[in-house]
Amino acid sequence: MAHAGLKSPGSEAGLPIQNLMKDRGAMDIATIIGMVTAFALVLLAIFLGSGLVIFIDIPSVAIVVGGVIGVTLINYPLSDMLKVISVAMKTLFPSKDNPTDHIEKLVAFSGLARKEGILALENASQDVNHGFFKKGLQLAVDGLENQAIREILEIETQKLEDRHKLGAEIFTTMGNFGPAMGMIGTLIGLMQMLQTMNDPSSIGPAMAVALLTTFYGAIMANMIFLPMAGKLQNVSAKEIFANELIMEGILAINNGENPRVVEQKLHAFIAPKLRKSNFDK
Amino acid sequence: MAHAGLKSPGSEAGLPIQNLMKDRGAMDIATIIGMVTAFALVLLAIFLGSGLVIFIDIPSVAIVVGGVIGVTLINYPLSDMLKVISVAMKTLFPSKDNPTDHIEKLVAFSGLARKEGILALENASQDVNHGFFKKGLQLAVDGLENQAIREILEIETQKLEDRHKLGAEIFTTMGNFGPAMGMIGTLIGLMQMLQTMNDPSSIGPAMAVALLTTFYGAIMANMIFLPMAGKLQNVSAKEIFANELIMEGILAINNGENPRVVEQKLHAFIAPKLRKSNFDK
Amino acid sequence: MAHAGLKSPGSEAGLPIQNLMKDRGAMDIATIIGMVTAFALVLLAIFLGSGLVIFIDIPSVAIVVGGVIGVTLINYPLSDMLKVISVAMKTLFPSKDNPTDHIEKLVAFSGLARKEGILALENASQDVNHGFFKKGLQLAVDGLENQAIREILEIETQKLEDRHKLGAEIFTTMGNFGPAMGMIGTLIGLMQMLQTMNDPSSIGPAMAVALLTTFYGAIMANMIFLPMAGKLQNVSAKEIFANELIMEGILAINNGENPRVVEQKLHAFIAPKLRKSNFDK
Amino acid sequence: MAHAGLKSPGSEAGLPIQNLMKDRGAMDIATIIGMVTAFALVLLAIFLGSGLVIFIDIPSVAIVVGGVIGVTLINYPLSDMLKVISVAMKTLFPSKDNPTDHIEKLVAFSGLARKEGILALENASQDVNHGFFKKGLQLAVDGLENQAIREILEIETQKLEDRHKLGAEIFTTMGNFGPAMGMIGTLIGLMQMLQTMNDPSSIGPAMAVALLTTFYGAIMANMIFLPMAGKLQNVSAKEIFANELIMEGILAINNGENPRVVEQKLHAFIAPKLRKSNFDK
Amino acid sequence: MAHAGLKSPGSEAGLPIQNLMKDRGAMDIATIIGMVTAFALVLLAIFLGSGLVIFIDIPSVAIVVGGVIGVTLINYPLSDMLKVISVAMKTLFPSKDNPTDHIEKLVAFSGLARKEGILALENASQDVNHGFFKKGLQLAVDGLENQAIREILEIETQKLEDRHKLGAEIFTTMGNFGPAMGMIGTLIGLMQMLQTMNDPSSIGPAMAVALLTTFYGAIMANMIFLPMAGKLQNVSAKEIFANELIMEGILAINNGENPRVVEQKLHAFIAPKLRKSNFDK
Repeated sequence: MAHAGLKSPGSEAGLPIQNLMKDRGAMDIATIIGMVTAFALVLLAIFLGSGLVIFIDIPSVAIVVGGVIGVTLINYPLSDMLKVISVAMKTLFPSKDNPTDHIEKLVAFSGLARKEGILALENASQDVNHGFFKKGLQLAVDGLENQAIREILEIETQKLEDRHKLGAEIFTTMGNFGPAMGMIGTLIGLMQMLQTMNDPSSIGPAMAVALLTTFYGAIMANMIFLPMAGKLQNVSAKEIFANELIMEGILAINNGENPRVVEQKLHAFIAPKLRKSNFDK
Repeated sequence: MAHAGLKSPGSEAGLPIQNLMKDRGAMDIATIIGMVTAFALVLLAIFLGSGLVIFIDIPSVAIVVGGVIGVTLINYPLSDMLKVISVAMKTLFPSKDNPTDHIEKLVAFSGLARKEGILALENASQDVNHGFFKKGLQLAVDGLENQAIREILEIETQKLEDRHKLGAEIFTTMGNFGPAMGMIGTLIGLMQMLQTMNDPSSIGPAMAVALLTTFYGAIMANMIFLPMAGKLQNVSAKEIFANELIMEGILAINNGENPRVVEQKLHAFIAPKLRKSNFDK
Repeated sequence: MAHAGLKSPGSEAGLPIQNLMKDRGAMDIATIIGMVTAFALVLLAIFLGSGLVIFIDIPSVAIVVGGVIGVTLINYPLSDMLKVISVAMKTLFPSKDNPTDHIEKLVAFSGLARKEGILALENASQDVNHGFFKKGLQLAVDGLENQAIREILEIETQKLEDRHKLGAEIFTTMGNFGPAMGMIGTLIGLMQMLQTMNDPSSIGPAMAVALLTTFYGAIMANMIFLPMAGKLQNVSAKEIFANELIMEGILAINNGENPRVVEQKLHAFIAPKLRKSNFDK
Repeated sequence: MAHAGLKSPGSEAGLPIQNLMKDRGAMDIATIIGMVTAFALVLLAIFLGSGLVIFIDIPSVAIVVGGVIGVTLINYPLSDMLKVISVAMKTLFPSKDNPTDHIEKLVAFSGLARKEGILALENASQDVNHGFFKKGLQLAVDGLENQAIREILEIETQKLEDRHKLGAEIFTTMGNFGPAMGMIGTLIGLMQMLQTMNDPSSIGPAMAVALLTTFYGAIMANMIFLPMAGKLQNVSAKEIFANELIMEGILAINNGENPRVVEQKLHAFIAPKLRKSNFDK
Repeated sequence: MAHAGLKSPGSEAGLPIQNLMKDRGAMDIATIIGMVTAFALVLLAIFLGSGLVIFIDIPSVAIVVGGVIGVTLINYPLSDMLKVISVAMKTLFPSKDNPTDHIEKLVAFSGLARKEGILALENASQDVNHGFFKKGLQLAVDGLENQAIREILEIETQKLEDRHKLGAEIFTTMGNFGPAMGMIGTLIGLMQMLQTMNDPSSIGPAMAVALLTTFYGAIMANMIFLPMAGKLQNVSAKEIFANELIMEGILAINNGENPRVVEQKLHAFIAPKLRKSNFDK
């Protein structure tokens, strides 16, 4: 008996990019549109008042960007840090999960299981691409009881959530240390300026340079890391939601419940206007 | 057998505006009064000291408003963002739910169910406009057991709460990024001013302009998005409260409990001075 | 059979003032002493350095006080806002609940119930002024089982806590928007001053006026709304505590438990030095 | 039958000082060392740069210290405020609870109970000074079942925690209002200075005086109240921990469990290197 | 019967350094790389603008470092403080736990237990170095029921988490008090400077010195204590995760579950791509 479903990667971080393209939907353009818009407006504000040149200072970039990376390395084990890139991919290529599709499949499977028995789901599960869905069906086909299935699927969902949370946390941490490193850079510049105030005309530009690290820190935090942490949480919430829905469906199927009741139960997960019953004729 | 109740939109975001008008009560004038008052006072403070003209600067508006929208697009999937407008409607047209009406109906239904059996509720439920209430009654009429009804209704309430929470979160996020984008704009203006301090007389006005984005950010956050997020949470809490009350009532009815006990149980939800018993004669 | 107890207002917000005086104990002078002390010291600090006159500016008061009220109206439904005044009363006239009195009564009732049966509590409950206590006894007398009584009383306590929490939240919200509106006012004044810096001698006073709204916001938040929100939470915690104690007592009585065990159970709620046993002779 | 144990004060706030000395261990010198160190360093920093005299200003002390006391009186009922002093004692004289001693006693008692019956613990409990331990043993000796004992002891621990939490909260509140009152004082001084900037040479000293209240607020919060609130939480966590350990032990004893299993269960509470088994020989 | 496993120190703080080296894996170089990177960049920024000498001031170091230590001593009992050093070691030498190794062992043990009985695990457990794993196996071998084993292992995991949390909390507290003591130092320097503004040329350097404590506080908090608190939490989360996984495995083994089901259950803990089944052939 093949347990292929158990090995299938499912919707998990760290896949090679081709798989990402297959498993996930069209790129979430909101992330791109949002970032382009925000940075374009900042650049516009800069060019309206002066050239870009006074906003670029390599040592300031180094202390903020390098400092944040360094501090985050203190904060997280190296192995977790390396996952950040594949995690960031998730914000660009979110899973194309559609709850109504899952519901339709689950209701159909529940009818099938009642007519032909639970083992009929073994073939039916071939069409399921969703790793968690496939594993759940396999557990039911294997003859496990609901209590055991629920335990396994709940642990799986919980740990998926924990892994996602860690990813979002790393971004949040980087977002929080950005302004902190920016302030440290500004303090250094400020103290150097204050020690050498011989030439009043140099005060302004020196202070402008000192403020640059604060500016970089604010940009990093508010225009990159914090919103990406936010999107990651949202993308994760949608996957967790799908897992919960699928789990309830599989448990109801394994319980031999009436397809209509299964549908009612699963419809409770989604907004009323999205509910399309197969039994209203 | 018609399952029309299951398809009825109920009290959900995203309805066409006419339905909103039917399903919801008079506009919650507090939102309007509050916004008019707050903005009128800010304008008054502005006009007492100067003209409005020094408080208007298109590029500053662009960086704050556009920047916040851009950053929020990074933070939330496009589909969630589009729901914001219909969600905002909720703060203006909150549901006209009245818990005492629900209690009266539920107590009456409990008497009816004890006298004529649970199936008698099928006709009675025609008068119920509340989607969740109707679905709950239908589940009881369909003969589901209390355990199954509770499960379905709890999932429905939980997911409704999650959807509401997402709406309030988007507003809160916009409220939080407002001051952040304002600070970024002010930093840009400040650094440009500091680089070109040749003419002392221009320092004041340049700094005033730099502060404009901070001002816009503070207005956006504290006078629009954060209070609207707050109202959304309150409106949501009231709907969740009604759902919980209705669920307890339907479970008690399905349990065949004495109408007087049902009333006592449901009265526990509301403040003592609102409790009007039908059994005190 | 009279259910008067169920209608009795109990310890709830929104009562006419005479009832408040009857139901509640002596005014909690701490609130008054605290407010007088704090404001007297602020006034003292003001008079030591200058007259009061430079700290009074009507438009500044308008933008902070009016702005906070406006913003809070956006945040909360009108009906909730109107309850604020009666809620504020609670911080001045907290309920005179004394847990040791409740324990003594409950232990006495438990003895009575064991000797003469649960119905004997019907007469005994006449002396009980506490609405929740009375309702609980009535439920036991009515013959409900412990499971049902616990459900009703827990819902009642939970919803009382929710209502209290809403009251404290409104105060906290007002406390949070105070400094925000103060900052907006200061930004307006600051920008107006910066635009017109012709006369250096006017900069100081103009900036002092600009700071006034920040000052008002800080006073409103830290000397009125936040501490009142805090007291409301404390007053509420005491009522919830009493309800929990009374509920455990009534359930133990209805369970027919030994008065000594009832006393031991209820003594667990209070500090050891407050425990006075009736069985140590 | 004597129930003396139930009246014994146990480890509770508000005891006369002599009892404190008896019940509690040697003063926790960390609190004293920490406070002396921190204040000595602040004084050193002051004396290195100037005399102490410019850091002392009676009205500034009055507005910060008096203001914080006033505001805290608004925030907490008078009765809770009065307990603060005895609560503060706890941070200096923490209970000398040692978990390994408790474990040893509980394991011994479990052997005794298995050999001579649960009633044999009546005499054995004479040596126990810990009020909660004594009460738990007494409940077992009185013949209550595990369910009832657990209920009583859990309520007792929960309410002890609530009382401790209130104490720590009052300190935290004072710590939070310290900087707030400091800022109000500084705003007053700043506005008075700005109104009368005739003499430029007076600006510096006037601003220094204005900053004094901010300084006092920061000292109060960060060097007194917040760390004391922290220690109180830690001291409380240790007492709660002891109560939980004792409760599990007593329940296992009452359950008639094997002393070796009792020991294994209780060893789970403490770090592996502290575990010394009486059964490894 | 030897209970050596119960005394084995396991993965706990406070071990002599040699044991650390044996029990733990290669030093987590991320902590070192991160700290070196961050500090090197700060030094670079300093040397690009001036010499290091203006950033070193012994009294400023004393007030910030000494002050933070003093304040933390007020906040935590002396005994907890002394554990900080061994706790800090954890961030450098995290446990080399590998969940897939644990899973493989547990699945093998589950096969063994089904073939040869639970007592066969006594010998097998000799190879297990993980203290918690060993204790769990021993409990199963001793014949305890699942309910008792779960209770003991859950308490052990909970208390381990509590001890870890305390360690991370101490670092967080030090990270929070760093900027606070820095601000107090800056306020002192600022007030001293403001009192003696005779010589305008001294204002700049005096203010630079005043800012030094703020700089030290920001460095301490953001580049040492807060990221180390973060890493400690992550290291702890990994240990807790391993304990949970091991506990579920031991309970399943003791339950006599099929090795394949055990594997499926334990695979739910880890990411799909890490799952390597022994049953797919």
